[in-house]
Parts: sequence; C-alpha cells; structure tokens
Amino acid sequence: MITAKGYAARKANSKLELWNFERREVGNHDVQIEILYCGVCHSDLAQINNEWFEGIFPMIPGHEIVGRVVKVGDHVKNFKVGDLAGVGTLVNSCGHCEHCEDGLEVYCKEGVIATYNNVDKYRDNLPTYGGYSNTIVTDEKFTLRISETLHLAATAPLLCAGITTYSPLKHWKVGKGHKLAVLGLGGLGHMAVKFGVALGAEVTVLSTSPKKEADAKKLGVHNFVVTSDPVQIEQVKSSFDFIIDTVSAEHDFDFYLSLLKVDGVHICVGIPPIGLTIKSVGGSLQMGRRSVVGSAVGGLPETQEMLNFCAEHNITAEIELIDIKDIHAAFDRMEKGDVRYRFVIDMETLK
Amino acid sequence: MITAKGYAARKANSKLELWNFERREVGNHDVQIEILYCGVCHSDLAQINNEWFEGIFPMIPGHEIVGRVVKVGDHVKNFKVGDLAGVGTLVNSCGHCEHCEDGLEVYCKEGVIATYNNVDKYRDNLPTYGGYSNTIVTDEKFTLRISETLHLAATAPLLCAGITTYSPLKHWKVGKGHKLAVLGLGGLGHMAVKFGVALGAEVTVLSTSPKKEADAKKLGVHNFVVTSDPVQIEQVKSSFDFIIDTVSAEHDFDFYLSLLKVDGVHICVGIPPIGLTIKSVGGSLQMGRRSVVGSAVGGLPETQEMLNFCAEHNITAEIELIDIKDIHAAFDRMEKGDVRYRFVIDMETLK
Repeated sequence: MITAKGYAARKANSKLELWNFERREVGNHDVQIEILYCGVCHSDLAQINNEWFEGIFPMIPGHEIVGRVVKVGDHVKNFKVGDLAGVGTLVNSCGHCEHCEDGLEVYCKEGVIATYNNVDKYRDNLPTYGGYSNTIVTDEKFTLRISETLHLAATAPLLCAGITTYSPLKHWKVGKGHKLAVLGLGGLGHMAVKFGVALGAEVTVLSTSPKKEADAKKLGVHNFVVTSDPVQIEQVKSSFDFIIDTVSAEHDFDFYLSLLKVDGVHICVGIPPIGLTIKSVGGSLQMGRRSVVGSAVGGLPETQEMLNFCAEHNITAEIELIDIKDIHAAFDRMEKGDVRYRFVIDMETLK
Repeated sequence: MITAKGYAARKANSKLELWNFERREVGNHDVQIEILYCGVCHSDLAQINNEWFEGIFPMIPGHEIVGRVVKVGDHVKNFKVGDLAGVGTLVNSCGHCEHCEDGLEVYCKEGVIATYNNVDKYRDNLPTYGGYSNTIVTDEKFTLRISETLHLAATAPLLCAGITTYSPLKHWKVGKGHKLAVLGLGGLGHMAVKFGVALGAEVTVLSTSPKKEADAKKLGVHNFVVTSDPVQIEQVKSSFDFIIDTVSAEHDFDFYLSLLKVDGVHICVGIPPIGLTIKSVGGSLQMGRRSVVGSAVGGLPETQEMLNFCAEHNITAEIELIDIKDIHAAFDRMEKGDVRYRFVIDMETLK
C-alpha cells in the first residue's frame, strides 16, 4: 500500500484534521498523482455533515483534483510520469452497461463510484478518499488530461463546477442565437457564464442583488437583471431560451419559468433540499411547452472534451487559493456565499 | 346576426339550460357549421365552476365540435357547403407573432382566443360561445377538415383530447423503439394509448387499479402495470423513455420519474390544481438527466395533421353518446371517472 496523508472528518459534523491513511498500490491500469490543488465544493461540506445520506467516516472530501503523475501502471497508455492529470467526481463504474458504453458513466446502471464517501464495489470494497490529500491512485479511464497552458490551480474546479455546467449546456445545444439566463452567481454559476459566452449565447445573470453586477460584467455577461425590480423583469418576460439554475436554496420556479420563451428549458444543476414546486402546471409549463430538466456532472469523454474546450478558449475558474489549515474558515465563507467564486486548496500547505 | 340556441350556464356554478343567443354573420373568411356532435371535456365543467379563472356568463361550453358546413364566406377557399368541419379549442389569435407564423397559434404572444369563455379582442370584443349549441361561425383558418370515413360522433373528441395527446407525442418524437407509459386512462389517456400504438411505441398503462386492464388491452396497450404492486413496479423501474401524464389529481412525481430511463421525459398534459412537486431534484431529475415538460393542445396545422393521421389509421375516441338533456348526469359521472372514455352530445337532441 502507499502511505498517504490528508484532511479527514473522523465522524459526521466534525472538523477536518490531519489523518495518515493508505492508498492502493498502482495497478496495471492505474496512475498515481501527486495532488497539487483541490477545489472546495459545496457538496464536500454537505457530505461531511451527512446532509445527503449517512456518510462513510473517516471521510476525506475533495473531487476537484489536479496534480502531476508520479507513477503509472504497466498497461497505462495515456499518461506518463511528469504529465499533469486530474480527477473529478467519479473513480469507477460497472463499465459494461449502456451508459458506461456511451461514456455517460455518471448514469451507470449498476451505480457509479464517487471519488470519496463511497465504497468501490467493483474493485476492492474499500472506501474511496478524496482530494484533500497529497496523493491519489486512479484507473487511467477515470483520469483526465490537463493542459499545461492553463493556470493550474484555477483548473481544479473545472472537474466538478466546470463539467456540471458545461455538460447540460452542450446536451441541450446552447449556443449562437440563444438567450441564456444564469441563476445564481457562485462556483457553478460563474462557470455557466463563461461557458455560455464561449458557446456564443447571449448571457444574462439573474440576481437578487444589484451588488453583483460589476463582477458579472467582468466575467463577460451581456446583461444583468435584478429580479426584485419589476421594471427589469417586465423587460425579460418570456425572453430566454434557457435558464441554467445553480441555486440550492428554495426559489420560485413559476416566476423563473415565466421568463422562458415557448419551448424554453429550465436546467437544474443546484439541489434545493426542499425540492422544487411548480404551482401552475398549466401556466408555467403547458402554455409555453416548457421543460424543467436536471443534469449531473458529465461522463469521462465529455469531461475531457470540456477540459480541451477550456484550454482552447483559455477558460478557468475564478478562485481564492487557500492554505489547507484555513479550510474551516473557507467553509464558513462558502456557506455565506462569500467566495469569488471557488476556494482551491494549495496542497503544498499539507506538507 | 344569426339566431342560435345552446345550453348555457347563466352564472358560475349553475346548471346549464336552454338559451337563445346570436352568432355573428358569416364574414368573407368565415364558415358556418351546423353542429352535429360536441364532446364533453373536463375543462367545460371546470370553467362553468370558475375553477381556473373568473368566467364570462352566460357561458356555452364545448370545444370538441364537428358538424356540416351550411354557409361559406366569399373568400373561403377550403370549405364548401355540405363539407364536414370541426372546431377545437381555439377560434382566433393575433396572426402575426412568431408562434402564429409557425402555426403554433395556441402559444400566440398576444394571447389566443378560446372557443368559449373568452372575448375575441381581435375581432369584435364579443364573448365567444362554444359547441353545446346548434351552430357556430368561425374563420376558416380556425376550422378543421373532417374525414367522411370516420365515425363522426367519435371524431369530436379528437379536437381537444386528441390533439392534446398527439401534439406532445409528435413534438418529442415518440415512436418505434420507445417505451411509452400512459398515466391515467380517461379521455386524454385513452387517446394517448391509441396514438402511442399507432406511432409504433411499446405502450404501457400505469394504473392504480387492476380493474382497467381488460379495457386497456382492448385499446391495444402492450403492457398494464398496477402501480400499487411493488413486484410489478420493480420490473419497470428506469424503463420508460416517455411518460404521458394525463392525471389532474395530486400524484407523486418522484415515484413516476423513477420509472423513466436516463434522458426520459415526463410529459404533463393533465393539470393538477395543486401543482407538481419534485422532492428529490438530485435523485429524480439530475441522476437520470430527466425532463418534466408541459404541452397545451396544438396549433391548427398540427390539428389538421392529427385528423388526417386519424383518418389514415382509423383512429377515433371511444365515446358514450348522450342526449344534451342528460348533460348534468354526464358531468357527475365524468367527475367520478365513470366514462369510457368521452361523453359526446348528440346535437340532434337540442332540436
């Protein structure tokens, strides 16, 4: 086994602390990565706090991982020692169902294996540990190639926030001639803005607060609408082809649906714990033939496509680089929405 | 003006009674139809009872109208005296917005004019009166050609129940190789079954009651699943490409979404007054990239296409023909779901 160290929650709702643990030996198809940076996702805190389901502890969070390959297995084809590499939210799947064969591993019929807080039933029945650590061993199939030309730390969030927004925009073919509204300007929302602009859409940020306008404009948005202003809202009624909704708090779906054109699509990538309610099925959905859809990260081929797209268009996340010892202060700020727009841990600080 | 008679609700929540009223003179682009049959739609009762909005009274309901042309205006091109003709849920629209130009008049940006319980703001600002009457005058653009080969009374429900189910099945391209589930086996549901079968889909009826199986099989369904039976449900988990949901009572969307495949589409054509709630946005929508969509009847060109499709495939509704004097007994039975599957008024009984 490979000796590793990371920041772990020893039990639910606990603080993270340094923990020495083991990674598996590098198998024939595996690569070992020295982790250089790991993004901090809302879901990290949700899982430490058992908000989604009973977690597996000790838990090392982190699924926005970038680093450098330090060892490769004998049969590895796409990586060599010294390459940059990334790991996102998935590290295994059944490999033979129709979705795995289509490169949509996230929708694996037998169940996907998450990068942390999961047990790898396809391999060794051992828990998976995430990227708040110094090294990781992954099958090359679940390992992404990372461009040498992008700011590396700012590339880490592409592995979750990036693909979660890129995947539905591509799937629903958002592009030139479309009006795209982005709801929620956080880790996911700011990536949706960048992708929407790069794909050629006219991008509007819908915000409850006028304070974010200057920042939104810096990200390249074409329009900024304060949703509490009836005059501004009147101007955008029935005007958007797509809304990408990154909000995980309760919000009024009938209101946002009224801003979509006929055949408009409301894409949910946030996860409101209270769920979603549409009060007027007739008015909000039927009278505009509108759709409410969901999408979960993306498969491996699409994640690689997204990373290549980012290299080509010079797209990375906007980040605040932190010392791993400051992770709890970062969690506190993240919960308040006080981050522009993603915390990334400099893993140098774990040494 | 043309003297007409019909069954009208003089005020909200009142019984229908015979009422003499006037129709407009036949204009250059109008046809006058002697109404032979009119279907009874759930929405007729809902509107008499002001369930959707404050109605316009006296109200003559009815928007599943078939009859014979008795007069045509000088510029009418597509109808001559003696032709069969039909009128559905719409009688006017702005005519120049993008949706009207696309033949999607139901989504008219300026607002569509309903066949009854509406004021025709584009023409004369007078109330519209529906098909529980002996004659109607409509612009030929909002008048449908009806096949002489189909059972005429059973054709009437195609004008609302038919197009409401045909339109989304065509729009979402349901056909060969697809598994389609039909939820609710009433006026809309039984038409969805017939269209699904004719379009080549494998059709399953999802029912709370095993009692409907024999009837469903007579309609041509391939499978029948009792939703309260866990064994049957286990077999259809994540199995459908589409659900067409005709239910207007409260129901569990998370449960039905779990029966859809990845990329499955839940099509709402019923209108639950309580709205719809999805408790698990992550589990029910995102982890299967599923869609919940709505659709409202259809435009005029598509309604004509549907009628032609029905003539070609010998499709009509299953009906119970009634005397107009028995309309209240029919309403009572309809409210209990006790109709197989649509009441149609024989307008001969109004004479």
